[in-house]
Amino acid sequence: MSYRTGHLYGLGIGPGDPELLTLKALRILKSVPVIAYPISAEKRSLAYSIVEQYLRGNQIEVPILLPFKLTESSQPYYDKAANKLVAYLSQGKSVAILCEGNPFFFGTFIYLYIRLADKFPTTVVPGVSSIMASASALGIPLSCSNDIFLVLSAILPPEVLASRLALADAAVIIKIGRHFCKVCNVLQQLRLMEKAKFIEYATMSSQKIIPIKEVNPDNVPYFSMILIPSHTVFS
Amino acid sequence: MSYRTGHLYGLGIGPGDPELLTLKALRILKSVPVIAYPISAEKRSLAYSIVEQYLRGNQIEVPILLPFKLTESSQPYYDKAANKLVAYLSQGKSVAILCEGNPFFFGTFIYLYIRLADKFPTTVVPGVSSIMASASALGIPLSCSNDIFLVLSAILPPEVLASRLALADAAVIIKIGRHFCKVCNVLQQLRLMEKAKFIEYATMSSQKIIPIKEVNPDNVPYFSMILIPSHTVFS
Repeated sequence: MSYRTGHLYGLGIGPGDPELLTLKALRILKSVPVIAYPISAEKRSLAYSIVEQYLRGNQIEVPILLPFKLTESSQPYYDKAANKLVAYLSQGKSVAILCEGNPFFFGTFIYLYIRLADKFPTTVVPGVSSIMASASALGIPLSCSNDIFLVLSAILPPEVLASRLALADAAVIIKIGRHFCKVCNVLQQLRLMEKAKFIEYATMSSQKIIPIKEVNPDNVPYFSMILIPSHTVFS
Repeated sequence: MSYRTGHLYGLGIGPGDPELLTLKALRILKSVPVIAYPISAEKRSLAYSIVEQYLRGNQIEVPILLPFKLTESSQPYYDKAANKLVAYLSQGKSVAILCEGNPFFFGTFIYLYIRLADKFPTTVVPGVSSIMASASALGIPLSCSNDIFLVLSAILPPEVLASRLALADAAVIIKIGRHFCKVCNVLQQLRLMEKAKFIEYATMSSQKIIPIKEVNPDNVPYFSMILIPSHTVFS
């Protein structure tokens, strides 16, 4: 007797605005019996809130607890989550994992993908990245022509940030959070403060665009970024 | 007597698969009286072919001729295109410019934006970038954690490509075309050939994934890219 397993989907659901889902993500979201999504320790899920209005109401919902403390290893969390999903997939139930932005671009989905993709048929549906959405929300072209474009995490040491930024034409620094002051020091050193634009929670209802010099460094969320647009765009 | 101008939309329509349009792009596409799209000298339009199935049939269609010869200045083309669109916008007709991928990321839309956005109310709708779609099509996580991520154009000199690639954890080289051999030489020099993945026309019906060592250098299209995924993903 042949037996079919379920299909695994990494579903890019975009940066926050529910209207930035793709037609493909919406179709799959509505068709699968099982929806999985990351939750924080407070049981909230940004990903779930983005798609909530589209759910049929009769799908199995599987919250996946992810680590949010930097002091503990995240691998046991992913192992546990993968095991949970294996149970459904092995029963022939297809599972869509909701991924904010784009699954394969700085997404925690990647850690589930490497545990599951060799065992089950898998499709990764690309989504609108928050980086692209931030540029649109700010009304700032990001890069053009033959620009060298860079994405950096704010957690990197200042000397690494500075050396890489010095070699790029346009850049986005992600996950600003508590690293705001460090990043601003680097931007000042490189004379990039005048060009830099700050945005938090791009396209979400909580989106804020604040002139970078007016940002309160004590109150910068993880989901914030600084864009340094190309100098070639307007020249 | 007050007079309302039209609204200008830069509409990200994604990398090629019509199902990768966002719900927002589809809504605006169907609602505007005027659709503008780039065409090549042969009058073909990739952007138009992506959305053709969604058009109502009673919209004004404005082809925009873009330069494709490197030997001539592109600015007069954009001036002419902008003037064409001003005529509709001034009459109170909203215009959606179709943009492959994401409008503010290496998009020719940027050159129209800088000519029109200060004169008319403008909204830029982000789309799925071909870079993100390529990673999904290849089944390769692009970057994770605190990776340094880079996008480079293949047209850059080999020493620039090499110096930047050496400082990144993950990279995408776009617009490969006739620069394929030069790029491969750089990748060999940096011992990146084993990791590099080649794809052309990602998510389009003409999509091809070819092992990089089997690519015919004489037949590489402009819409192709080489991905160098993060080494941290699988470690």
